[in-house]
Amino acid sequence: MAIRLTSSAPDFEENLAGLLSAKREDAADVNDVVAAIIADVRKRGDAALIELTARFDRQRLQPATLAIPADEIAAEIARVDPADKAALQRAADRIRAYHARQMPTDQSWTDPEGATLGWRWTPVDAAGLYVPGGQASYPSSVLMNAIPARVAGVGRLVVCVPTPDGVINPLVLAACDLAGVDEVYRIGGAQAIAALAYGTDTIRPVDKITGPGNAYVAAAKRQVFGRVGIDSIAGPSEVLIIADAGQNPEWLALDLMAQAEHDADAQSILLTDDPALADAVAAAVDALLARLPRREIAGASWRDHGAIIVTRDLSEAAAISNRFAPEHLELCVADPETLATECRHAGAIFLGAWTPEAAGDYVSGPNHVLPTSRSARHASGLAVTDFLKRTTVARLSPDALAAIGPAAVRLAAAEGLSAHGMSIQSRLDAQNRTSLE
Amino acid sequence: MAIRLTSSAPDFEENLAGLLSAKREDAADVNDVVAAIIADVRKRGDAALIELTARFDRQRLQPATLAIPADEIAAEIARVDPADKAALQRAADRIRAYHARQMPTDQSWTDPEGATLGWRWTPVDAAGLYVPGGQASYPSSVLMNAIPARVAGVGRLVVCVPTPDGVINPLVLAACDLAGVDEVYRIGGAQAIAALAYGTDTIRPVDKITGPGNAYVAAAKRQVFGRVGIDSIAGPSEVLIIADAGQNPEWLALDLMAQAEHDADAQSILLTDDPALADAVAAAVDALLARLPRREIAGASWRDHGAIIVTRDLSEAAAISNRFAPEHLELCVADPETLATECRHAGAIFLGAWTPEAAGDYVSGPNHVLPTSRSARHASGLAVTDFLKRTTVARLSPDALAAIGPAAVRLAAAEGLSAHGMSIQSRLDAQNRTSLE
Repeated sequence: MAIRLTSSAPDFEENLAGLLSAKREDAADVNDVVAAIIADVRKRGDAALIELTARFDRQRLQPATLAIPADEIAAEIARVDPADKAALQRAADRIRAYHARQMPTDQSWTDPEGATLGWRWTPVDAAGLYVPGGQASYPSSVLMNAIPARVAGVGRLVVCVPTPDGVINPLVLAACDLAGVDEVYRIGGAQAIAALAYGTDTIRPVDKITGPGNAYVAAAKRQVFGRVGIDSIAGPSEVLIIADAGQNPEWLALDLMAQAEHDADAQSILLTDDPALADAVAAAVDALLARLPRREIAGASWRDHGAIIVTRDLSEAAAISNRFAPEHLELCVADPETLATECRHAGAIFLGAWTPEAAGDYVSGPNHVLPTSRSARHASGLAVTDFLKRTTVARLSPDALAAIGPAAVRLAAAEGLSAHGMSIQSRLDAQNRTSLE
Repeated sequence: MAIRLTSSAPDFEENLAGLLSAKREDAADVNDVVAAIIADVRKRGDAALIELTARFDRQRLQPATLAIPADEIAAEIARVDPADKAALQRAADRIRAYHARQMPTDQSWTDPEGATLGWRWTPVDAAGLYVPGGQASYPSSVLMNAIPARVAGVGRLVVCVPTPDGVINPLVLAACDLAGVDEVYRIGGAQAIAALAYGTDTIRPVDKITGPGNAYVAAAKRQVFGRVGIDSIAGPSEVLIIADAGQNPEWLALDLMAQAEHDADAQSILLTDDPALADAVAAAVDALLARLPRREIAGASWRDHGAIIVTRDLSEAAAISNRFAPEHLELCVADPETLATECRHAGAIFLGAWTPEAAGDYVSGPNHVLPTSRSARHASGLAVTDFLKRTTVARLSPDALAAIGPAAVRLAAAEGLSAHGMSIQSRLDAQNRTSLE
């Protein structure tokens, strides 16, 4: 059902360009609605949150019940199957171990002129994590956002998760508990983002907001960007698989559908130099779609956005992959390490047939919050450094200022900034006076 | 003329809160105008650029003259004073040496389960640097943006600089040349940002856009964010100085005015535990303002946004500084290294009386593109990593998948994502079949 292209076909470039530029999301223009919600929360604080939560989530709250208290969290967690809890723990341990290696170190050195230079890393004071409610309320996303923040040393970690009609996912609370989240609020939508950015009487503001959400949440994050830091604006998920002859078509079909089942806007693409494998995977996908529980979603995604592209060779596949800059790139080929060196743009690379992308969604260790919609051309997945900031540090000795100051005075003059030049020259003059005394 | 506060006064907290929340910029709402310009450039490409440049910059261009050709650049550079050129070279060398140390290394390791994990860094393919025209057309900013991009290994580096009435700053072109810029276009405003993000027949699109600009440029950057990467949205510049008894009041006054002379919206703040120093600096600023060439701008900034705050001790000054999270923080105290450990939020720290902030604007080495408007709480200055992206890499051995896969299958089931679980389980089943054979 997905589009099938062959790179040697005369109309290939045209068809590929169409696939690359196809819009997968109807981005509803909710900017005005969101701006009004943010203004309301800034003005009326808790009262606005309570009113909006009653309207959108059919939940009657008071300031004292905005937060989910520790005993309610504990009671919910007690309902979680121990095997699920153990799996969550396993995932948390592996994610923590991976992200601990991302912790950068401070640098300082003194150059020949006598300038001591470097930089320091410090965590943000407080971070807020948005967790969607309902179907897309994923405990794995809680771990993927909260653990890097904790590794970074963030002092205060806040989660907002809407609980429409009072329904909450106990595994989400278990993940919050495992990751060391400090506060959980049962609010969602643009109003939650506004509360995190500007604060209310009950919810103190944070410095950085991460986590996925619907169009309202995304628009709200864009609008508060600058007031607080945000992670990227997530689009629909995607996988691109490069496979060579001899790969298992059922596994490839499952990997394609694991992406497609997320969302009808998701995209799954197979690139292969083997036309027979292309046929086999297409057939395997069709067979799988007949029995997959989420076949409606996965089928729509595969029909509307899926693609199988037969290329001349694997290098051409890598070049085409670079134009997609996929969020997830699976290299199911005999020598994935070599092919990976040709793949310049991807959020995450999965090497070899034993590394299904789904393992990376949960337990491999790397983050599953990754750049979508071709933004891997310029963006990276979530990391510990997203919860840190770098402060540059400089100390000039009098000799260093004497050595490099005159060039700065010259440039300040060229830029017409007299006080800049004078602030340096007055110090150079003082040195000269001292040396003359 | 600036506000004077004392931390022990009963109304201090109220006054400080007012100072912290004071808006320094009239952010004109230019979003609609900018959206129309972007749409026009997307639709009509070069023709839109030419028409908008005729209207805003009074420049008649053709597609062939959008770019400034190499011989014109060379002729302009030939007009630059050799001493200015040497100063630029000195600055470029020091900026390059500092940023070379920011180049991160790839990581790869194999954990006890047999998972080979890590990440790789790759540069963006193309970066665009916006350089304002007219008064704020600073060659130093060209170096501060272009050199990190070059250090990162960006393949194609493009500058857009408006040349109203045909006037261009030769030093800006000299800086482009020194930094290795590949293409220079004489266009500006939102239309330049649109061309960089979406491309035209003449200007190929880039992946990342950095550089300062007016309200139109800032709004355009916010609107194209996602399509391309952007640096932060810059607000007016600011300095906060903490000084103790015995510091030179003239130097401190010059450092405060070096910030104030940028822009009437700039902010200069002195914190000191010595009331006598506060008096002396206030007097020195007044004396300086009488003779400073840019006294109108600096005077307005100091009157409307400047502040001198007398604190009980230096630790209290550091705590107040953390609330401002200043772009530039000068520690003119006897032991600046110790005080720096108490300063958690700042874009750049300048240690000791011989490290005037202005030296950092040009020649110290660290970047002068820094987070403004309290965003140092969560953001960092421009760095080499802004022109790189991190791709995570994972390779699981069959044993590794056997060890960690079951936890992923469990979590996929809990999240209702069947194909996720099946993509892992089918591989585990194959292993079991093989081991039974």
